[in-house]
Amino acid sequence: MLPDYHFSLVWPVQWGDQDAFGHVNNTVYFRWMESARIAYMDQLGLDDLYSTQRIGPILASIKCDYRRQLHYPDTVEIGAKVTRLGRSSIGLVHTIYSQQQQAVVAEGDSTLVVFDYNTQQSHAIPPELRAAIEKLEQRTF
Amino acid sequence: MLPDYHFSLVWPVQWGDQDAFGHVNNTVYFRWMESARIAYMDQLGLDDLYSTQRIGPILASIKCDYRRQLHYPDTVEIGAKVTRLGRSSIGLVHTIYSQQQQAVVAEGDSTLVVFDYNTQQSHAIPPELRAAIEKLEQRTF
Amino acid sequence: MLPDYHFSLVWPVQWGDQDAFGHVNNTVYFRWMESARIAYMDQLGLDDLYSTQRIGPILASIKCDYRRQLHYPDTVEIGAKVTRLGRSSIGLVHTIYSQQQQAVVAEGDSTLVVFDYNTQQSHAIPPELRAAIEKLEQRTF
Amino acid sequence: MLPDYHFSLVWPVQWGDQDAFGHVNNTVYFRWMESARIAYMDQLGLDDLYSTQRIGPILASIKCDYRRQLHYPDTVEIGAKVTRLGRSSIGLVHTIYSQQQQAVVAEGDSTLVVFDYNTQQSHAIPPELRAAIEKLEQRTF
Repeated sequence: MLPDYHFSLVWPVQWGDQDAFGHVNNTVYFRWMESARIAYMDQLGLDDLYSTQRIGPILASIKCDYRRQLHYPDTVEIGAKVTRLGRSSIGLVHTIYSQQQQAVVAEGDSTLVVFDYNTQQSHAIPPELRAAIEKLEQRTF
Repeated sequence: MLPDYHFSLVWPVQWGDQDAFGHVNNTVYFRWMESARIAYMDQLGLDDLYSTQRIGPILASIKCDYRRQLHYPDTVEIGAKVTRLGRSSIGLVHTIYSQQQQAVVAEGDSTLVVFDYNTQQSHAIPPELRAAIEKLEQRTF
Repeated sequence: MLPDYHFSLVWPVQWGDQDAFGHVNNTVYFRWMESARIAYMDQLGLDDLYSTQRIGPILASIKCDYRRQLHYPDTVEIGAKVTRLGRSSIGLVHTIYSQQQQAVVAEGDSTLVVFDYNTQQSHAIPPELRAAIEKLEQRTF
Repeated sequence: MLPDYHFSLVWPVQWGDQDAFGHVNNTVYFRWMESARIAYMDQLGLDDLYSTQRIGPILASIKCDYRRQLHYPDTVEIGAKVTRLGRSSIGLVHTIYSQQQQAVVAEGDSTLVVFDYNTQQSHAIPPELRAAIEKLEQRTF
């Protein structure tokens, strides 16, 4: 449902994702983008980098634009796509699609920084990670 | 601790706000901004408007810039300030301050739309709400 | 994986379900049992009863026994089974099974009360709900 | 408000703690009991034990009985009291009190096991921890 994405997750909406307004709470979209971002990075081997060297992504900034309300029951598809690469920063965009509504319900934009949890400082994107991202996205940066 | 704000909440960090990286999870900042936003609006009587007419704020967009990692135990102060008023939209900025670190840990920006949950459409900001915001912020828009 | 259950959900573990101990946080099991309980009741038409008459289940008590730690990535199966029916109370048991570990990771027990949200009082289990439960569980109470 | 407790936390109810039924969600009570349990153990120095030796409490079982519904805005007091000590297990009870309703809204019971995260096995309660608990509770076990 997200033809512009090479990577996405399909995820059930939980009843408890809803708040007292009776729609999915705004914070849940950030949990979903986190799940997509981490699954994306795991696929590129970034979880090994953290296990072995304590180098991992840290979130510097994230934004969500809400297009439509979501309700239980539904299933969402959450796309994640790298669109920017700096020395140590990785920019991603996200689209969240509702299967019930057959429509985009939210769009997100986030910036990660590759972070060395030992020195507590940013770290240059490892060349093999850069190559893995370019391969997955089928483009160069 | 937030001299630029006329409204803020003081809030304890919960141990369970932390994730597997051992710091406060990125989604928690959005929960805190929500709490500050709703307390701000309640103070202006917007909760009555929802109870009686089902007119209430809906979140259109929100962003968070993370400046420092946060850990339990700590107490945060969460500022909320209206900086923009449109026909039906309300723009707020947020600052989150750590008492332990004596430093700003995050900054946020959000856009609310006054929403009629009956007609499911945006609704002009009621004049009394606009006046209450201007009074609280001690300025005109 | 749960042969003793006529009803279960299959659910992905989210990275963010983990806490600072690096395992799935204890509260997440209750969210999963809630999702299973609500899906079970929805299948019996209890969501219609709430929409039309504001009669719905309210949780009176719930317990979880943790058998093993869970970690991301994994997929869990969450069983829900009615084992007790009173005048207005419904007793359920739950089993949570990890596909990665091929083992039961938690067991739960909960008591619901059918509740009239108009009068704010308990309400006798409607006969058609009792019949639907007996049919799903393939037994009488 | 909890005269039977030597230890308690006072905590604000967040708007976002509420679910689509318009009351505080059942999982939130477990987050509150966790916060009280961890603050209790931290006061006894158990956080140092985890930092230095990776020995810490792990939750074996927890139960909550819900007495009344809770709504935002409110402030709760969450009591934690050790009532049972085994070789490696610690039994606690909890009471949650609503300042708005001036009434107990929930009661909990939990069993912790002192756990060695290195060997992934239970560990006898250190004598100094046992002594600290007896001192805080002003009784012997």
